[in-house]
Parts: sequence; structure tokens; C-alpha cells
Amino acid sequence: MDTLHLDTINSIDYPIYFDNSIDQLVNFIKTGNYSRFFILTDENTAQHCLPLVKEKLGDIDNYDIIEINAGEESKDIDFCIGIWKMLIDFGADRKSLMVNLGGGVISDLGGFAASTFKRGIDFVHVPTTLLSQVDASVGGKTGIDIDSIKNIIGTFTQPKAVFIAYDFLKTLPERQVLSGLAEMLKHGLIVDADYWNQLKNSDLTFPAVELIYHSIEIKNRVVIEDPKENGIRKSLNFGHTVGHAVETYSILKDDGTALSHGEAIAIGMICEAWLSHKKIGLSKAELNEIVDVITSLYPKYLLEESANAELYALMQKDKKNQNGKINCTLLTQIGQYSIDNICTEAELSESLAFYATL
Amino acid sequence: MDTLHLDTINSIDYPIYFDNSIDQLVNFIKTGNYSRFFILTDENTAQHCLPLVKEKLGDIDNYDIIEINAGEESKDIDFCIGIWKMLIDFGADRKSLMVNLGGGVISDLGGFAASTFKRGIDFVHVPTTLLSQVDASVGGKTGIDIDSIKNIIGTFTQPKAVFIAYDFLKTLPERQVLSGLAEMLKHGLIVDADYWNQLKNSDLTFPAVELIYHSIEIKNRVVIEDPKENGIRKSLNFGHTVGHAVETYSILKDDGTALSHGEAIAIGMICEAWLSHKKIGLSKAELNEIVDVITSLYPKYLLEESANAELYALMQKDKKNQNGKINCTLLTQIGQYSIDNICTEAELSESLAFYATL
Ligand SMILES: NC(=O)c1ccc[n+]([C@@H]2O[C@H](COP(=O)([O-])OP(=O)(O)OC[C@H]3O[C@@H](n4cnc5c(N)ncnc54)[C@H](O)[C@@H]3O)[C@@H](O)[C@H]2O)c1
Ligand SMILES: NC(=O)c1ccc[n+]([C@@H]2O[C@H](COP(=O)([O-])OP(=O)(O)OC[C@H]3O[C@@H](n4cnc5c(N)ncnc54)[C@H](O)[C@@H]3O)[C@@H](O)[C@H]2O)c1
Ligand SMILES: [Zn+2]
Ligand SMILES: [Zn+2]
Repeated sequence: MDTLHLDTINSIDYPIYFDNSIDQLVNFIKTGNYSRFFILTDENTAQHCLPLVKEKLGDIDNYDIIEINAGEESKDIDFCIGIWKMLIDFGADRKSLMVNLGGGVISDLGGFAASTFKRGIDFVHVPTTLLSQVDASVGGKTGIDIDSIKNIIGTFTQPKAVFIAYDFLKTLPERQVLSGLAEMLKHGLIVDADYWNQLKNSDLTFPAVELIYHSIEIKNRVVIEDPKENGIRKSLNFGHTVGHAVETYSILKDDGTALSHGEAIAIGMICEAWLSHKKIGLSKAELNEIVDVITSLYPKYLLEESANAELYALMQKDKKNQNGKINCTLLTQIGQYSIDNICTEAELSESLAFYATL
Repeated sequence: MDTLHLDTINSIDYPIYFDNSIDQLVNFIKTGNYSRFFILTDENTAQHCLPLVKEKLGDIDNYDIIEINAGEESKDIDFCIGIWKMLIDFGADRKSLMVNLGGGVISDLGGFAASTFKRGIDFVHVPTTLLSQVDASVGGKTGIDIDSIKNIIGTFTQPKAVFIAYDFLKTLPERQVLSGLAEMLKHGLIVDADYWNQLKNSDLTFPAVELIYHSIEIKNRVVIEDPKENGIRKSLNFGHTVGHAVETYSILKDDGTALSHGEAIAIGMICEAWLSHKKIGLSKAELNEIVDVITSLYPKYLLEESANAELYALMQKDKKNQNGKINCTLLTQIGQYSIDNICTEAELSESLAFYATL
């Protein structure tokens, strides 16, 4: 790590740091003229990541720590209200900074809370999961859930900077690594066949830092081109129409053992690869290749046919839809996405049936 | 009215209509390619304003009505959650439109709910109070209260259009007219001495449409120059540091008979005119002139000296402050504002004492 230098990536007027990121964070805070800052953590990042940050902060002490429970259940309006009230109690003003130290739950929730507090205070992300490094922390989407409907409330607000520390991934449970990996695979599948091949031939139990870096570059390129999701950014939705429904379904049903975001997206990518084959010409060979790679990495999830109606209802509530029609991003080939494909209930059911046969 | 033509005002990429505004609204909806729209009203606007809108909509029927209780208490996160949930239940998608038909409570709350629903859907304002016509509907501030702290949560999001219908003011109670008038007086005091003189010499029990138009022009000019409140827009805070504290104090204390926003701002303008005189050279003659105009229009409100500590605590929670210092916009003369004047607790208490002597 120490000899490898990865350039800072420039996103929509903010930098994404890779080298000595926590030092960069401290420097950002020191030079940023903030009246006070707030570090948002969950139980796990408070244990595994906060100590290093505190150590690097040295005698800087104009901050408070806000700790929430770990897990998607915290990405809810009630926790958000809790954060707003703590900011009020801690005397946060318009020159305060929010530091989101954690996975995608922390960055989505902390980003939303900050982007609406006093009509918007600055925030930065220090993503500590693979998923949040390669995906959630880049692109400026903030969001919270209501009644388990994911990201139904949110804003488009860019962080002031992102600080990627590869070292934080060391304590990440294997399932969480797999969760982030799904987005990396997606990045290859939608726009970069070479990267997909590279991933396919790597040991992915713990992805190398260069692979992570490349994944962020891809995501960054897409969101810079289309910050508000009017066009190419929709490419990132591959696997997410079915995947989000499966994720919500699992959260509602599998108390305590629910699928992670990436595990659900992995299923979604298989279903949507099948739809791509059926509807817009993804070859059988590439469909098989995608299925092979994903099934070799991810455990099988049992989806009974009786779940289809509920899954379809969840898809209809998806933000991405208009006029009640289900809209999917599919692939014409590996490395080439196609947006705005309307899929019928029957097609979606068939794709789920395909997954069930694997 | 029918022969008088008032040009559409161009704001930050959206129009403010004056002539045949409700027809313009219907036209906007017809040509806007929205999947569905939602009219947010309160009890009073449902009674006094909605019928005309419905009549003009004719056989357009792809909409739902969301009605909330009248009053500031509705501008709260709980009502906001209620609106979000209704939008979900009504099947709102990203191409839905929110039509805010009401006073500042409706436009602030509806604007915030819309600007965060699915990361932002379009909204328009149809302001039906004088205050919301000359102030709240222009400038893109949305907001809600938490624990009675005003506008603590919100966004900067511009409406797609504003439709001003003078006729709606006919049913407005006198106290509500006075409430909006305070902002009109403020507009003259901060940047337009001629307009102030015009107002001073008019019958203000029911302001003429041209005066309203001019007031909107002033506000619009200010917010176009400084959309995010980094400089000149702070001029609009004149009267609002003390005024907001008095308003919150009254809401907490005077169950049912609380001061309106404008009534509180009227008091704030007197106190801050006094501070302007003491601190930055507003002449005694102009101070007296301001006091005379305001006291001739607004009833006296009893503020015991024992309230000062609580008022000061409220001012400290004000969004406008940094590092716990109280920041006021003052006047060097009528028509000339001055921003970022730090006022001490003693000075603020004295200004309240001055008001008490009147
Ligand atoms: N904004 C976006 O563009 C975007 C994109 C993708 C996903 N998301 C959102 O991200 C969320 C999922 O992100 P996530 O998987 O990072 O969730 P998460 O934040 O819940 O993190 C997963 C788990 O890992 C733990 N953890 C975090 N860092 C750790 C570390 N260094 N060591 C040990 N444990 C650690 C967390 O406490 C949690 O238990 C979802 O809510 C999803 O909607 C947002
Ligand atoms: N966003 C901004 O820039 C901005 C600026 C100034 C004030 N505000 C906010 O605006 C709010 C105050 O606005 P407001 O005074 O319009 O409040 P409001 O919306 O509560 O309206 C005042 C009263 O008038 C009633 N009403 C509305 N239209 C009517 C009509 N045509 N006929 C009869 N009754 C009618 C309402 O039901 C309510 O009872 C405050 O919350 C304040 O913070 C926002
Ligand atoms: Zn994802
Ligand atoms: Zn005001």
C-alpha cells in the first residue's frame, strides 16, 4: 500500500482521496474554517474505524460523535429526526460539518440529515465498507427509507470530499465484502468489458485496491456525465429493479438474516441478465458467463413462486418507475447497457423462475 | 383589475404570473406532461380557494387533494411525514407535480415535502395570503419546524412557477393582511426608500395590487442576486432576528392567540431599528418615522422583561448565527441595509425595553 500511489479522483466539484486519506481528512477539517464538526458512526465503525480517526485528530476537539445502531433499520426518518435533534442540542450552525464515517447507511442518512439541516450544511464521506467505497459515497445521492420503502426520501447533494481508506476494509465481515463486490461486477457489466474480465480472473474474496479504484473511476465517470439521473446514470440501475424488491422483501421477511444490498443485487443481476437475453439480445453465452460468475460467489437465496406478487408490488413502488410501468436497465452485451426497458409482470416472474432453477 | 396588466416577473429560471394566474396554472398543468398532480391545501384554502381552482381545471382529473390543518403547527416534520406517506399511497412518481395552494405554511411544507420526495419532484406555488405572495413564495426556501424551532430543516429548491391571484386575498382576515404588510414595509426599509414613502402614504388596510407587485419585484431582485444567502439576501433578515424569537416565544406561550409572523416581525423591526440607531447611525428622525408607521398599524404586544432570557436563548438557536453570536441585519438609513452586525445580549435586551416603552 505505501508504495502504491493512487491519484485523487476529481468528481463533481469535489475530490475523492485515496492516499493517506485520514490525514487528508484531518487536513480538510483543519483548513476548512468549520465552527464545529460531527462524526456520524454506527456501533461497528465506532469500534473499528473511529479510534484511528480520533488518533489522527490529535488535539483537535471541536467535535461531537453521534452513534447510531448498525443496519438498514437506522436509515429511517425516525433516526434522521434523532440526528437533527442532536445537531440542535449540540449547537450545530451553518458552518458546521458532518463527517459520515461508515457504510452506505451512514453516508445516505448522514448526507440527507446534513443536506436538509438549516437548509444544508457541508458534509464529507469516509466510507468504511466496500459497497460505500465503490458506490454509495460517490454521486451525491442521499436518502432515507419510510415504511421500509428504500430511499423514498432524499436529495441530490454532493459531499465536499470523499476519503477512501482501504485499511478500514480489513475488519469488514466477508458478507459485506461480497455486498460491495456486486456493484463492482455491475460496473464492469454495464460499461467496461475489460474490467469485467479482470474481475472474473481475480481472487475476489478480498478485492485488490486497484480494482476498487477502477470501480470508483467508472461510477464517477457515469455520475459526472449525468448527475441528476436523466440518462446514462440509469445504467447504474442494472440489477436494481428486481434487486431492490428482493432486498425489501428479505428485510420484511427474514428477521435478522436478511440479504445484504449486494446479495440482493446479485440476484437482481441474474434476473435482469435473463431479461436482457429474452428481450434485447444478450447472448446465451454471456448470460451463462454472468450467471456462472455470480453463482460461484453468492449463496443461493430461496424465493418461492408465491413471493412473486409481493415482489411485483414492491417493484411498482420503485422510485424509478413512471405511470406504474416497471422500468429496467438491461444489457445488450457485457459492457453495454440499455436503459428504459419496460418489463411486464409475466416477464419479471419468469426471470425470478429462472433464478429459482439455478 | 381586468384592465390592469402586470407583466410576468422572471425569477431564478421560473416565472411569477400575475395576470389570469389560475388560467396560467391550468395551462401549466396541461402542457407540463405530469403523470399526476397533488394539490396541498389547508382547511381555509380548501374552502376559499380550491373551488375556483377546481372550476378552472374543468375535466382534468388526474389529481388528488391533500388537506392539512391550518396553522404553523402543521409545518412540522410529523405533517411532512404524513404528506410523504400520502404521496406514496396515491402512487406519486418522479413525474408528479405538487401544487401548493395556500399561505407560507403550505408553500414551505409542500415545497420541502416535494423537494425531498424521490429526491425531488416538481412543485409550484399558488400563494393565497399576502405574506406568501410578497415573500414566502419567492426565493426557493422550503422549510419545516422541529420542536417549534422554525425552519430548522429545509432545502433551497426553486418552484417551477408561481401563480399570484390577487382575488384570493379577498377572504383573508385583516390580521393576515397585516402580517404580509410587515414584509412589504421591510422591503422598502432595506432597499427602496421611494417604495417606503409610497407605502407610508397609502391606505394599507388593503394594499393595492401594484404595491404587492412592487414588493415581489424587490424580493425577487434580491434573491436572484444571491440565491443561497451569502450576501445581499441577508438584507431580508431585517427585523427577523428579534422577530423570529418573539414569534416562537408567542407560539409557545399564547395558546390560540399567538402573534402572526408579520406581527412578530413588526416588533422585530422596531427593536432592530432601535439597534440600528444605537449601533450604526440610523438617524433619530428615521427611527421615529419607522416606529410611528409600525405602531399605527400593529397592536401592542406585552413583552415582560422576564421574557428576555428566553428570547435571547431562542435567538441563539437561530439558523442565522455562527459561533453562538447573534447576528442582525440593520439599517444605516431608510432604504439602506447593513448585514452581519453582532449584537450583545445587553443590546438586545435594551432594544426590547425600548419596544416596551412605546
Ligand atoms: N447513495 C448511493 O448512491 C447508494 C449506492 C448504493 C447503496 N446505497 C445504500 O447503502 C446502504 C448499504 O451500504 P452498506 O452495505 O455499506 O451498509 P451499512 O452501512 O449498513 O454497512 C454494512 C455493515 O458493515 C458494518 N461496517 C461498516 N464498516 C465496517 C468496518 N470497516 N468494519 C467492520 N464493519 C463495518 C456496518 O456497521 C454494518 O453492520 C443501503 O442503504 C443502500 O441503499 C446508497
Ligand atoms: N420560504 C420563505 O421564504 C418564507 C418567507 C416568509 C415566511 N415564511 C413562512 O410562512 C409562514 C407564514 O405564512 P402565512 O402567514 O401565509 O401562514 P399560513 O399559511 O398559516 O396562512 C395564514 C392563515 O391564513 C389562512 N388563509 C390562507 N389563504 C387564505 C385565503 N385566501 N383566505 C382566507 N384564509 C386564508 C390560512 O389557512 C392560515 O390560517 C411561516 O411559517 C413562515 O416561516 C416563509
Ligand atoms: Zn446498489
Ligand atoms: Zn418574514
